[in-house]
Amino acid sequence: MTEFLKVVKYEEAVEKIGNHFPVRKIERLDLLSASGRVLAEDIIGPEDLPSFDRSTVDGFAVKAEDSFGSSESLPAYLEYQGEVKMGETAGIKIVKGQCGWIPTGGMMPPGTDAVVMVEYTERLGDDTVLIYRPVGPGENLMLRGEDVKQGQSLFNPGKIIRPQDVGFLASLGIDRIDVYQPYKIGIISTGDEIVTIEVDPGAGQVRDVNTHALASAVHSCGSIPHTYPIIKDEFQALNDAVLEALEDNDVLLLSGGSSVGIMDVTIDVLLSIPGSELLFHGLAVKPGKPTLAVKVNEKLVIGLPGHPVSALMMFNIVCSPFLKPDARRKISVKVTQNIASQPGRDDFIPVILEEDDEIWLGQPLLGKSGLMSILSLADAFIHVPYEQQGILAGSIASAWFF
Amino acid sequence: MTEFLKVVKYEEAVEKIGNHFPVRKIERLDLLSASGRVLAEDIIGPEDLPSFDRSTVDGFAVKAEDSFGSSESLPAYLEYQGEVKMGETAGIKIVKGQCGWIPTGGMMPPGTDAVVMVEYTERLGDDTVLIYRPVGPGENLMLRGEDVKQGQSLFNPGKIIRPQDVGFLASLGIDRIDVYQPYKIGIISTGDEIVTIEVDPGAGQVRDVNTHALASAVHSCGSIPHTYPIIKDEFQALNDAVLEALEDNDVLLLSGGSSVGIMDVTIDVLLSIPGSELLFHGLAVKPGKPTLAVKVNEKLVIGLPGHPVSALMMFNIVCSPFLKPDARRKISVKVTQNIASQPGRDDFIPVILEEDDEIWLGQPLLGKSGLMSILSLADAFIHVPYEQQGILAGSIASAWFF
Repeated sequence: MTEFLKVVKYEEAVEKIGNHFPVRKIERLDLLSASGRVLAEDIIGPEDLPSFDRSTVDGFAVKAEDSFGSSESLPAYLEYQGEVKMGETAGIKIVKGQCGWIPTGGMMPPGTDAVVMVEYTERLGDDTVLIYRPVGPGENLMLRGEDVKQGQSLFNPGKIIRPQDVGFLASLGIDRIDVYQPYKIGIISTGDEIVTIEVDPGAGQVRDVNTHALASAVHSCGSIPHTYPIIKDEFQALNDAVLEALEDNDVLLLSGGSSVGIMDVTIDVLLSIPGSELLFHGLAVKPGKPTLAVKVNEKLVIGLPGHPVSALMMFNIVCSPFLKPDARRKISVKVTQNIASQPGRDDFIPVILEEDDEIWLGQPLLGKSGLMSILSLADAFIHVPYEQQGILAGSIASAWFF
Repeated sequence: MTEFLKVVKYEEAVEKIGNHFPVRKIERLDLLSASGRVLAEDIIGPEDLPSFDRSTVDGFAVKAEDSFGSSESLPAYLEYQGEVKMGETAGIKIVKGQCGWIPTGGMMPPGTDAVVMVEYTERLGDDTVLIYRPVGPGENLMLRGEDVKQGQSLFNPGKIIRPQDVGFLASLGIDRIDVYQPYKIGIISTGDEIVTIEVDPGAGQVRDVNTHALASAVHSCGSIPHTYPIIKDEFQALNDAVLEALEDNDVLLLSGGSSVGIMDVTIDVLLSIPGSELLFHGLAVKPGKPTLAVKVNEKLVIGLPGHPVSALMMFNIVCSPFLKPDARRKISVKVTQNIASQPGRDDFIPVILEEDDEIWLGQPLLGKSGLMSILSLADAFIHVPYEQQGILAGSIASAWFF
């Protein structure tokens, strides 16, 4: 190794990567295009919502005090003044002793302060309405500004725009918002034994899984993957590829072959670039010890393990949270089998999820970690924190969907 | 109403919609383009994986029997025959009493059946290796076909292609797969009081939330939304819009205004189309009673409630599972507050999630259901099943991310 091995803890690695993740440009998009993207501005309530006092039921708009004391046996008699139509100004004006029909969502007529639901009323001819139940002031209506007040802080930068947020923004007439541009992420697989997936691997060779799995993972985080040809374990070839990829991307993911020497070469290449700084080299994480991060001026290079299960899990653990804030949604799982873990290391264990009455059951995929089929079998992975010695069967652990 | 109100249970509605969801066309895509899509073919293992016996550690490939009885104090002495290089045929051949260096992932040389990890060995000059620990046959290696066997069934149609599935397929040299084409989904908002979001609503009017929220939701399920102008509560206008939208789409989402008459008009329009069939009209679900489904020949119309919170929740409950099989990922939450529910109805209650030690805490958003801000506050929604009278504070409930 050309540098001291700077093995860091999981949290420290995430923090270092977070601190040096490149700054994103901002773009202004319409709501549908902004859907799924990360908000880049503060959203302040532009107006009161609702913009008028609205009924929340079908019924009769009244002065509440006119209904006081009414009952099934002794209804209040109110003079009918007409109806409020959807989408129109109230039109009628109510004074003491009067009422008017109002549909759900209709605008409260001036003079009224409550709505009696239609099921507690009866029409008597054209002019009279019987009220069988008292209502309090403010009952069955929503006051102007009760939902959102003008000037109220609604969203902050960093929030993912979900369909319901699109709806909420639409309800306020906000039709364009600032969001962050997607990151451009370069992906380079390295290793003497790696061949492209289109060709039949010769003896001792394996297909390039990481380029494809990482491109798909980057894409699923809403970023733009750029893939590059496979690079052999040689300084010059790797150096040229890294410089080219850094030119075109914000972040570069290298995934190392399983050969022993490649990590040294990678470090040599990266640290030979002027302005580069080693953030860490080695992670107290299973299965991601050979993970490294190097800041190269305003850009970031993350070196992932060569083994595809490890590479994809480490991408999810240290990288995806910065691409998509909700990329990792925590769930609780009941572990079905004892899991051994060394204290002084964070362990992430792929599990198969099975639905149980109350909670997901998580069956650890412990067998041979080299199996490719584990990739596809895994539904989630469990986190065994640094200080823990393992997880007993039947206990609850935190997991993330994988 | 022009037809009997066919109020159905939640499960029945989901089943009816599922049975009549349009059939999708299939397209063949490369792995990255297929990422996130739904698989439309059976995937069978095309070859053995690994395609050769591979070491899973760095060490010395041996005949296991040569290591038997070795210990720290009494190592076995083996003759060194050379090294296996990554990505190359083994090159060396081992007979009794011999060994060769092998890196992780390297091809086992003929004659060997186990690998001794490097930490339990010592080189003695150029020709001799000391073995300090016995290994059993098959130890520290993966046999050809141990991961995947040629002809083995791997994936079935209906599976979502995740990054790890892309990786797994790549490892088998499968670079193109059949996936379903995305659905085309038409979206029409109806209601006399609804105005487009770009204009300032006049007195009594509200902005068109559903077109935007549903388009975003459809998009987030990997389908293609087509939005149409807002339609007022009139037979002819709705009829023309529905016919046009059915022409261009597989599924049509109508979301009703909150005016009382619109559902009748919608039903009249839909059932006047030759070949239409009412699947249900009214759902024993809160907040989605005014939900309906009509099959129109090979296409499907789903009528959603007018209120945006209800419309989006009902879309998630009855529609999204057919667009994206993993759209609803169940989680368990501990409910922080009593929730009342009427038996004989499935209730779905939006909740705010808060992280707790072991499990998500779900704080029900019970207040006024008309609030738009509930849309954005909600992180998930809880399901209170048909037969249940409610959920007590502190108990565990099933929920879906929203």
